[in-house]
Amino acid sequence: MDFRAAAHRLADWIADYLEHPERYPVLARVRPGDVRNALPSSPPRHAESYEAILADFERIILPGITHWNHPGFFAYFAITGSEPGVLAEFLSAALNVQAMLWRTSPAATELEEVTLSWLRQLLGLPDAFEGVIYDTASISTLHALAAARELAVPEVRRSGLSGRAELPALRVYCSEHAHSSVDKSVILLGLGHDALRRIPADTEFAMRADALDAAIAEDRRAGLQPIAAIATVGTTSTTSVDPVEAIAAICQRERIWLHVDAAYAGVAAMVPDCAWLLRGADAADSLVVNPHKWLFTPFDLSVLYCRRMDVIRQAFSLTPEYLRTSEGEAGVRNLMDTGIQLGRRFRALKLWMVLRHFGAEGLRERLVEHMRLARVLANWIDESDRFDRVAPVPFSVVCFRLRDASDDEQQRILDRVNASGDVFLSHTKLDGRFVFRLAIGNLHTTEAHVARAWALLNEAAGL
Amino acid sequence: MDFRAAAHRLADWIADYLEHPERYPVLARVRPGDVRNALPSSPPRHAESYEAILADFERIILPGITHWNHPGFFAYFAITGSEPGVLAEFLSAALNVQAMLWRTSPAATELEEVTLSWLRQLLGLPDAFEGVIYDTASISTLHALAAARELAVPEVRRSGLSGRAELPALRVYCSEHAHSSVDKSVILLGLGHDALRRIPADTEFAMRADALDAAIAEDRRAGLQPIAAIATVGTTSTTSVDPVEAIAAICQRERIWLHVDAAYAGVAAMVPDCAWLLRGADAADSLVVNPHKWLFTPFDLSVLYCRRMDVIRQAFSLTPEYLRTSEGEAGVRNLMDTGIQLGRRFRALKLWMVLRHFGAEGLRERLVEHMRLARVLANWIDESDRFDRVAPVPFSVVCFRLRDASDDEQQRILDRVNASGDVFLSHTKLDGRFVFRLAIGNLHTTEAHVARAWALLNEAAGL
Repeated sequence: MDFRAAAHRLADWIADYLEHPERYPVLARVRPGDVRNALPSSPPRHAESYEAILADFERIILPGITHWNHPGFFAYFAITGSEPGVLAEFLSAALNVQAMLWRTSPAATELEEVTLSWLRQLLGLPDAFEGVIYDTASISTLHALAAARELAVPEVRRSGLSGRAELPALRVYCSEHAHSSVDKSVILLGLGHDALRRIPADTEFAMRADALDAAIAEDRRAGLQPIAAIATVGTTSTTSVDPVEAIAAICQRERIWLHVDAAYAGVAAMVPDCAWLLRGADAADSLVVNPHKWLFTPFDLSVLYCRRMDVIRQAFSLTPEYLRTSEGEAGVRNLMDTGIQLGRRFRALKLWMVLRHFGAEGLRERLVEHMRLARVLANWIDESDRFDRVAPVPFSVVCFRLRDASDDEQQRILDRVNASGDVFLSHTKLDGRFVFRLAIGNLHTTEAHVARAWALLNEAAGL
Repeated sequence: MDFRAAAHRLADWIADYLEHPERYPVLARVRPGDVRNALPSSPPRHAESYEAILADFERIILPGITHWNHPGFFAYFAITGSEPGVLAEFLSAALNVQAMLWRTSPAATELEEVTLSWLRQLLGLPDAFEGVIYDTASISTLHALAAARELAVPEVRRSGLSGRAELPALRVYCSEHAHSSVDKSVILLGLGHDALRRIPADTEFAMRADALDAAIAEDRRAGLQPIAAIATVGTTSTTSVDPVEAIAAICQRERIWLHVDAAYAGVAAMVPDCAWLLRGADAADSLVVNPHKWLFTPFDLSVLYCRRMDVIRQAFSLTPEYLRTSEGEAGVRNLMDTGIQLGRRFRALKLWMVLRHFGAEGLRERLVEHMRLARVLANWIDESDRFDRVAPVPFSVVCFRLRDASDDEQQRILDRVNASGDVFLSHTKLDGRFVFRLAIGNLHTTEAHVARAWALLNEAAGL
C-alpha cells in the first residue's frame, strides 16, 4: 500500500470513526502496561508496510485510547476535533510549515492575523487587543504573567530577580478556584509559589473583589509588590465567573496587570445572551481563550489577546543573525518575537476552516444547545431526591453530588459509571467534598447522551 | 461535499503535493498584506461548503506558503513532513486525544515511553535517561534550565528569586554559537540575560572548554553562582560540535547541570560513523533532540532526555483535585507532571509511525545520504575559484561565501537565488561576515537539487 492508498484508507477509517465513535468505550479499558507490553522493546530494523503499521494501530493502540471525540465524553472540559479541523490538520501536516517568521510562510502569519481578528469580533473585544496563537492556555498565561513581570520590575530582562537586594518579593493574585497553570507560571518565572495569593471565593465560587482589595492593601503594607491579578471567566471546577469589572477597577487603581483566563468559557461571549461574561474584560491587559476547548478546533490552539503585545515583545524579542530577513520585509510581523517558542505550527489554518465551516451562526447554535443540555441535566438533578446540584450552571458544566453519601461512595459510583464505556465523567472537590462534574462540549453530544449519563448515575447510586 | 468526500479529495491533493511539491516556488512570492487583503475582514455569518473553503485554500493561502516540504528547501534547518508522519497527524487530529494523564489515553502515554526508548537505543544513550515529548527545543531547554535552577537554589519553587538578599546572581554558560532559545530561557526563568555567559569558540566554532573553565573560576571569585552549562552538538550557524566530554568533566567537577542541545544533529548519532558526536553526553543531566528537525517527523515534536526527571517533577508537579485519578492507577506516569503545559497532543503516534515506516536502517541510509550530499557541495565549493567554504561540514549543512564580495553583494546574490523559486537558502554571520548557509534535510532532496542551488549561486554571482 503506497501513501495515496493509505491516505484513502485513513480517510474512510476517520469518516467512519467520526460518524460512530460510540462503537468504542469512551474511557480506555486497558490496564497499566498493556499497550507497552504489546509493543516490541526495540526499534524495527527494517521498513514496515502501512498495512502492518495500521493493523497494529487498530490492534494495540486503539484499545488504549480514551475517546475525547466521543459524544459521551463529559470529563474535564469536553472538546471536539471537528471535521473541518481534522481536514485542516491533515493539510497542515503535509505543508509542514514553521511559522516563526513572516517569510517562512506569509500565509501562516497573515491567516493568524485575520482569523484572530474574526474571533475577536465574535467575542466583542476591542481592536486594541492584538492576538497571537500559542499551543496551550498554560503558555498563554505564562506570557501574560511574564509581561506583568517585565512591566513591574525594571531591568528584569537584563538583570533577573536574584542577587538584587533592592527588589521586594512580588505578588500575583487569583481566585482560590483559578487554574493550576497560574501556579506553574509563577514558579517558572522565578516569583515562587508563595508569590501567588489565592483570594477566597463567594458562595457561588467567584472571587470576592473585596477580599482581593484587602489582600493587596495588606501586602503593600507588608512591603510586598503586587504585579498582576488573574480573573477567571469559567473556572475549571464549576465554571464560575469572577467579577471582572470590579477586579479590573482594582487593577487599574493599583496599576497592576489584569489577565483574564477565559480559556474555556470565553467563546460563549459570541452568544448574545452571554455577552455579559466578558463585561469588564475590555479593560484587561490580556485575555486567553482556547478554541481547542469549546470551539470545536482540534487540540492544540490557544489564543492570547493582549493590549500590550509590545511588552511581550520587549520581554522576549531576540533576533540572531541566521533569522534576520531583508529590509524588504520591514513592517511585517515575525511571530517568533511574541513568544518563547521559536518554532510555531501553522495552527491558524484549522481555526479558519472551523470558523468558515460552521459560520458564526452555526457556532452560536451549538454553544446554545450545549448550554441547554446542561440546564436540562441541572433540572433533572434539581428534581431528583437523590442528587444535589452544588453550583450554578452558567455554561455547559454541571456539578452535583449524591445526597448523604461519603466521598468514597461517590468515587465508587463514578468508577462504575465510567466503566460502562458509554460515558466518562470526572470529579472535583468543593468545600472539601467530592463532587461529580459533567462537562458538555462535544459537537455530537445530544440529549440522549446526557440522559444516558443520568440513567447510569442513578443506576449506580441505587446499587 | 461531505467530510468523507472532502477527506478523499485531500488525500489525493496531498499525495499529489508530496509527489511533486516542485510545481510551487519554494519561497512564497506574495508581498506583505497580499493574503490578508484577499480575505474578508469579518467572520462568515453562515456555514460555508468544503468546496468553497478548499478553493480559497488553493487560491489565497497556497500562494502565501513557503514550502518547507519542498526538496529545494535549504534554509534554516531543512525538515520533512514525511508520508507516515502526515498520516499519523491525520489520525491524531481525529482522535483529538489530550495526553495529560495516563487515563486520558493510556496508549498516548505508553506509546511515548516505547518510542522514546526506541529512539534512545538508536542514539546509544544509557537507559538512565528518561524521555518526554515537548513541542519545541525551546521548551525542552527551558525545562532543563528550570531543573538546574531547582537544584541550585534551595526553595526556589516556594520562595522564588526576588526579595532574597542571600541569593547570589546565578550564571549559565553556553557557546557564543548556542541557540537563542537559551537566552529566552534564562530571561523567562528570572535569571536575567546577564546571567548567560557566552563562551568563545575555537576556529572551528566549537566552545573552548578551557575558556569555560576560566569563566566559571572567574565568576566564582566574583561571588556569582554557576548553575548550568549548555553544550551544543550541531550549532545553528555551522553545526559545529562543542567538546562534550571536556565540558561534562568540568560540569561534574563544578557540580553544575549539563544540558546538551543536540536538537538538530543528535539523530545522526544513529549512524555508526557519527556515534562519536554524543561522546560524553552519557554524563549529561539532560539532552534535547528534535525528530521534527532531521528525523522526517512533522513539526512539532521535541524530545528531552533527562537523568533527573525527578527534579523536573519536583519543580512543576502539581495536581489539583479535578485531575486526581483513582488509586488503581498508582504507579502510572502522568505526563502533565513533567512540564509546564497541562495540555499535550498525542505526538508519539507520528514518531512511532516514522520509525516503523523507515526502520532503523532506512533512517540511517537517508541521514548518510544527506551528509554525502553536503560533502558533494563542500567539494564543489572547495574546487571553485569563486566561493570559499568557511566552516567544517560534520553533518548536512554547508557554510560558504563568495570570495572578495561585500556583505551587500552576498545578500543580493542570495535574494536572486531565492527568487528563482527552485531553492531557498538562508544565511548567517561568522566572524562578522555574511555567509551563505545551505542545509540539507528534506527526504526528497537529491543531488540534482543541490546542483541546481550551486548553479543558481554561480549564475547569480556572475551577473
